[in-house]
Amino acid sequence: MSALEITGVDITPVAFPDPPLLNVAGVHQPWALRSIIEIRTGDGLVGLGESYGDAGHLDRLRQVAGELPGLDVFDLAQLRRRVARVVGGAAAADRHGLTGGSSERKTELSAFSPFEVAMLDLQGQAIGRPVSDLLGGRVRDTVPFSAYLFYKWAAHPGAEPDEWGEALDPEGIVEQARRMIELYGFGSVKLKGGVFPPEREIAAIRALRAAFPALPLRIDPNTAWTVQTSVKVAEETDGLLEYLEDPTPTIAGMAEVAKRAPMPLATNMCVVEFAHLPSAIEQGAVGVVLADHHYWGGLKMSAQLAAICETWGLGLSMHSNSHLGISLAAMTHLGAATPHLSYAADTHTPWQNGVDVVANPLVFTGGAVPVPTTPGLGVSLDRDALARLHENYVRCGIRERDDTGYMQRFQPGFTRNDARW
Amino acid sequence: MSALEITGVDITPVAFPDPPLLNVAGVHQPWALRSIIEIRTGDGLVGLGESYGDAGHLDRLRQVAGELPGLDVFDLAQLRRRVARVVGGAAAADRHGLTGGSSERKTELSAFSPFEVAMLDLQGQAIGRPVSDLLGGRVRDTVPFSAYLFYKWAAHPGAEPDEWGEALDPEGIVEQARRMIELYGFGSVKLKGGVFPPEREIAAIRALRAAFPALPLRIDPNTAWTVQTSVKVAEETDGLLEYLEDPTPTIAGMAEVAKRAPMPLATNMCVVEFAHLPSAIEQGAVGVVLADHHYWGGLKMSAQLAAICETWGLGLSMHSNSHLGISLAAMTHLGAATPHLSYAADTHTPWQNGVDVVANPLVFTGGAVPVPTTPGLGVSLDRDALARLHENYVRCGIRERDDTGYMQRFQPGFTRNDARW
Ligand SMILES: [Mg+2]
Ligand SMILES: [Mg+2]
Repeated sequence: MSALEITGVDITPVAFPDPPLLNVAGVHQPWALRSIIEIRTGDGLVGLGESYGDAGHLDRLRQVAGELPGLDVFDLAQLRRRVARVVGGAAAADRHGLTGGSSERKTELSAFSPFEVAMLDLQGQAIGRPVSDLLGGRVRDTVPFSAYLFYKWAAHPGAEPDEWGEALDPEGIVEQARRMIELYGFGSVKLKGGVFPPEREIAAIRALRAAFPALPLRIDPNTAWTVQTSVKVAEETDGLLEYLEDPTPTIAGMAEVAKRAPMPLATNMCVVEFAHLPSAIEQGAVGVVLADHHYWGGLKMSAQLAAICETWGLGLSMHSNSHLGISLAAMTHLGAATPHLSYAADTHTPWQNGVDVVANPLVFTGGAVPVPTTPGLGVSLDRDALARLHENYVRCGIRERDDTGYMQRFQPGFTRNDARW
Repeated sequence: MSALEITGVDITPVAFPDPPLLNVAGVHQPWALRSIIEIRTGDGLVGLGESYGDAGHLDRLRQVAGELPGLDVFDLAQLRRRVARVVGGAAAADRHGLTGGSSERKTELSAFSPFEVAMLDLQGQAIGRPVSDLLGGRVRDTVPFSAYLFYKWAAHPGAEPDEWGEALDPEGIVEQARRMIELYGFGSVKLKGGVFPPEREIAAIRALRAAFPALPLRIDPNTAWTVQTSVKVAEETDGLLEYLEDPTPTIAGMAEVAKRAPMPLATNMCVVEFAHLPSAIEQGAVGVVLADHHYWGGLKMSAQLAAICETWGLGLSMHSNSHLGISLAAMTHLGAATPHLSYAADTHTPWQNGVDVVANPLVFTGGAVPVPTTPGLGVSLDRDALARLHENYVRCGIRERDDTGYMQRFQPGFTRNDARW
C-alpha cells in the first residue's frame, strides 16, 4: 500500500438531549456536547473519532485538523508531533472537573486522542481489519459494561419528564437499576454518588444489594467526602462493593483512605495521566485505575496504561462521560484487545435514549457489546442524524459543560460538593 | 483483507563463527547458535524471526510452530494463547546466565517473541508498510547503536587469528575501538567487563576516554563485582561513564550501589521481566533498563517496557546477544518507533564479520542504522547462506551455549566471575 494520505478533516460539534443527572458538580444540562471527527483520505475512506464538545477543546481540535492534510494515516508518531506543535503548552480549563485536574500534557493528549482513533479506523478500513486487530488482537469476543445509575430529577425544570423518571431515594435507584438491567442486561452496577449525605447513598447501596444479591456494586462520589468520612463509608460498606471510586480528593487523601478501606479504591480523578502513576503507586493510593482513551492519549496509550496496571497488580476498569456511538465502538475495541481489563467498563449509553450519530450503533446483549469484526471501528455516520445533532448544537446555546452553573439556576446558593461531607 | 492464514513454519538452527570474546562466564565458543524462523502464508509471503539456538529453546520453538497453521497473522492474542498452552510452565535452563535468571514467564515470552516478529513482518508485507508503522510510526529515521568492545584472545586455541586480533589490555581495547569506529562510525562505546580485576578494566576505560574524549562510555561487568567494589569503581569512574551496567547481582545489591554511585546504573540482568519492575523501581535499583525483544516478549511488549521507563523517568537502552540480520532489523524498527529510546543500542553486528542469513543486511552509517521503509522488516533470506549456516550448525556439534565449559578446556580450574571481586 502506498501512503494513504489525509485529504481533509471535518470537526462537527453536536448536542444531544441529556437527562437531569445529578453529581458532585451539580446537574447535567439539557444538552450534552460532543465533537465528531471525520478524517477523509484520497481513496474516499472516512475515519471517525469522537471527543468533548466544549468550546476550548473544539478550538484545539480545529487547530489540529488544519495540520493534518498530507499526513499518512499510519503515521501516528507524526500526528503526535503535529498536535504538540499546535496545542502544546495550552492549559485547558476543565470546568466540570470530573476527570481530575488539567495539565498541558493532558490537554495535548486529549486533543490527540480522537484523531488517533479516526486514523486507526482508517488503517483498519484500508487493510480490511477491525481496530482490535491493530491493538494486538481480540482477547474476548464481547466487552462487558456496567449499569451506570444516577440520582436524577424526573425532568429538567420546565420540561416534560423523561422516560427514566425521578430517582432521589433508594427505591428510585433500585427502580432505575431494574429498568436499565432489563433493557441492557448489565451484570454489574455503579451508582454515581456525591449528591446526598453519605448515609443516604449507603442506604441506596444496601437497597441495590438487597434487590440484586449477585451483582457486583460500585459507588463513585467524585471526591465528595473527607478522608475520615471515606474511611467510615468504606467500613460501613465492607462486603458490599467491588470497589470504591474516588471517595476523596488527591493521591495523598486516597492513600490515607486506602490504608483503612477493606475494598480496593478506584480512580479516574487522582490518576489521570502517566505522570500521576509513580506517586499513586508508591503511596498505595489506588487499587483500580479507570482508563479513558479520551484523555489518556488514545487507544494505544490506554493499552500502555493497561500494561502498567498489569505490571503493578492494579485492576483496570474504564471511565465514561456522556458519549455517542463512535466512542462506544472505540471503547469496545480497546476492551477487546486489552487482556488486563479486569472490571466491566462504565458507559453512559443508556442515557442517550437511542439518539446517536452512527447509523449502526453497537448493540448490548447480556450487558456486553459484541466486538465488531468488520474493518475499522465498525460504525459509520448517519449523516442526517449528524446534521440534526449539529442543529441541536447551534440552537441549544450551550458551549461549555457547566453542571454547577446550571444547578445554580434552580438552587442559587449551590456550590460543588467536593469534600463536603 | 480476508484472513491471512499461516500455512507453514520452518525453524532452522544455524551457527556462525564467533570470535573468542571474553566475559564473566568464560569465553565465546567458536560458533554462535541462532534459530531462524520462517512463517509462510497461503499468499506465498514469508515472515522472518530470529532467536536463540540452544537445544531446549529450539524444542520449544518447534512445539509452538506446530500450533501455528491456520492462525491469522494479525491475531497476536491467539499466538500468545497458543504459546502459553504449549510451553507455559516450562522452566528454561539459561546456562550462560547473561540475561539474568530464568522463569516460566520469561521462557514463555522468549518462545513468543520470534513468532511475533515474524507475524509483524507478514502484517507489514501484507499491507505494504514497514514494521515501524505497526508500532506507532517512526519517530527517528536512523537508530543509533554503540560500539561493543570485548576483551578477546587473538584466536580460538588451535585456530588462525581472526581479523580483530588480541585485546587483553587498555591498548588492545583502544585499538579494537578504533577499528570498530572506523568501520561503523559508532558514536558511543561499551566495554564488556567482568573479565579482569576491576582496576585493569578501569584502566581500559581511562584509555578509551583519552583516545575518544567526546564519546559516551559504558562498562558492563555482568555482576562480577561485590556491592563494595561496585561503589568503589563507580566513584573512581565518576565523570567517565554515561552509565554503569550490572556491576553487582540482584535488585537489592544494585539498589545499594545506586545509592552511592554518581552515574545511573543500567541493567539487563536484575530486571529482565515485567514482574521485576515494581521492586526495582521501589528500591531505586536502576536508572536505565536495557530492553531486549528476544526475552521481553517481542516488539509490542518491548514498547510497553519503554512506556514504563518513560513514566518512571528511567532511561532506556537496548541489549544484544550474538545475532544476525533479522534481529538487527527487528531492533531497528523497535528503536525507530520508540520515542523514549534514550541511549544508543547495543549490537554484536561487528562480531559477525559480515556473515549473515539475510540477503540485504541493514547497513550502518555514522554508527546508526537507517530504518527500512520497505514493507515488513525490510530484510529477506539468502537461502544459500541459510543452508551454509545450517550446515555449520549440523557439523559444529554445539547444541547449547556454554562459555564456561569452553573456557575450562583451556583453564581447567576456571569458574564464573560472578561477584568475584
Ligand atoms: Mg469516576
Ligand atoms: Mg549487559
